[in-house]
Amino acid sequence: MLAVISGGVGAARLLVGLQRRVVGHELVAIVNVGDDVELHGLHISPDIDTIVYTLAGEVSAERGWGLEGETWQAMDMLGRYGGHDWFSLGDRDLGTHLYRTQRLREGAPLSTVTAEISRAWGLDLTIVPVSNDPIRTMMTVAEGPEAGTEISFQDYFVRLGHQVPVSDVRFAGASASHPAEGVSAALDLAGRIVISPSNPVVSVDPVLAVPGLRDHLVRRRDRVVAVSPIVGGHALKGPAGRLMTEMGYESSAVGIARWYREICGTLIIDTVDAELAPDVEALGVNCIVTDTVMSKPGVLDSLCDLLVPPSSRSTAG
Amino acid sequence: MLAVISGGVGAARLLVGLQRRVVGHELVAIVNVGDDVELHGLHISPDIDTIVYTLAGEVSAERGWGLEGETWQAMDMLGRYGGHDWFSLGDRDLGTHLYRTQRLREGAPLSTVTAEISRAWGLDLTIVPVSNDPIRTMMTVAEGPEAGTEISFQDYFVRLGHQVPVSDVRFAGASASHPAEGVSAALDLAGRIVISPSNPVVSVDPVLAVPGLRDHLVRRRDRVVAVSPIVGGHALKGPAGRLMTEMGYESSAVGIARWYREICGTLIIDTVDAELAPDVEALGVNCIVTDTVMSKPGVLDSLCDLLVPPSSRSTAG
Repeated sequence: MLAVISGGVGAARLLVGLQRRVVGHELVAIVNVGDDVELHGLHISPDIDTIVYTLAGEVSAERGWGLEGETWQAMDMLGRYGGHDWFSLGDRDLGTHLYRTQRLREGAPLSTVTAEISRAWGLDLTIVPVSNDPIRTMMTVAEGPEAGTEISFQDYFVRLGHQVPVSDVRFAGASASHPAEGVSAALDLAGRIVISPSNPVVSVDPVLAVPGLRDHLVRRRDRVVAVSPIVGGHALKGPAGRLMTEMGYESSAVGIARWYREICGTLIIDTVDAELAPDVEALGVNCIVTDTVMSKPGVLDSLCDLLVPPSSRSTAG
Repeated sequence: MLAVISGGVGAARLLVGLQRRVVGHELVAIVNVGDDVELHGLHISPDIDTIVYTLAGEVSAERGWGLEGETWQAMDMLGRYGGHDWFSLGDRDLGTHLYRTQRLREGAPLSTVTAEISRAWGLDLTIVPVSNDPIRTMMTVAEGPEAGTEISFQDYFVRLGHQVPVSDVRFAGASASHPAEGVSAALDLAGRIVISPSNPVVSVDPVLAVPGLRDHLVRRRDRVVAVSPIVGGHALKGPAGRLMTEMGYESSAVGIARWYREICGTLIIDTVDAELAPDVEALGVNCIVTDTVMSKPGVLDSLCDLLVPPSSRSTAG
């Protein structure tokens, strides 16, 4: 069994490759819900949706999130009213949020609804929210007109375009949350646990904030492999580098090794960072140097060959 | 001032004509909210939306509800998941529900949100929900697989296509509700109060169920004019005739006169029902016989001329 701790876009791309190598029931994506947001009465789970749409082959190639063939009639109308339209909700995408919200209102846990959505797209891996309890990533703004106020992740990421400095990040609700069914078992039984190249501060940490999960990884540290989301000192996408720095870490593969050292035995870093390998190893983390930029031809496959060696495969996929 | 007690489609058509004759601030539509429904987490106000879209000239001519140029991407997606898709929500229409739900969640009363929506469409009459409190029309099914159960109006009207017999109708929440701001004043000050040709059982009665409003009409009965929604023994559209019968009334203009006699001094009935005029008058209700089928050329204007005689007009419109 392979367990993948997942944020959004980076995790989704990695899972596309892993899905070709591991039979469905042996591949478990444990997904961050700290980005979830209630908007206009709808429950939106951006990381889950990005993973589902990507694995279904229907994610917008241009945007990297949301659906192909999307239209924006509801947003246009919302704009007419002067409503909050900073969070783009496509018309097709809205169908997912309507369904999820209805089912949650009926009392179904998020994990059940996620399984239903995943099945409707014909996916056979397990996609599970880390918890069915509400966990919300909250960011304290350090400068500018909103300095000192605590805002939600989507306010930070989308409304403010992750362009404001942050002094603190916390995961509201996490301490009272429980892992969703199957999460602890997957982390116990997995022959390998992969930390996807997601943002450590706001994608991976909210997963680990669910009581007990960090301990699982500490205990099984030798089985844990992370892929660095920082390449050449910067995140390929999004504010991971900036947030690492603001949290007092270096925006580099070494900073990632330091962030993960207690829970992760092996770190995969990009070839452009080869010279950093000794510094990673000095932190007690095994280091593998290879191409990691998945948008380049062949890289996803070679990366997945590393994570799931052909000899260990449960299927030819 | 002209106050119009309003359901959905019939009221909306009448208001189109009245709007040409009365300046905006002197025309007040007091709208039923018993049909309102929460679906998929969204607050939907079908009668208000039908009136807004119709007066804005954007109602679907084909359907009589919803918007022109509508698409159905969200519903298609909901269908993929096997979600509840019996209540059609167009993509454009969804923008209205998203806005309304967001504003209600922010604490704005429904009357404020309705005024905002109305203004966004450039309307200048006052459209006010009869109450900002939740009132829900509930129907007890008399026969069939759901016999004995109480269902919401939209379950009855849309999901079951108003094809089941009903033994009882009640307005949950009405006894604890209060009129929205401006409703009582409009009924006190109006030179004329019009009861639109809406369903008396499920469109007009839930308006009158708000404590105090029936008494307003009883007190000002001489100012109240109703347009019969029953023509030739049948409703032009919808289950008004059937429900009248099930509630123990005759499905006729006379049944309407009996239903409204305490609150209404004058009833306008259709020329096809001319022979019923003496029976209406015998109930103590003045009867005016004229063409009332608003889809026929010229009828809306002549009907509105009756309701707002040219000599009394505040503007040439």
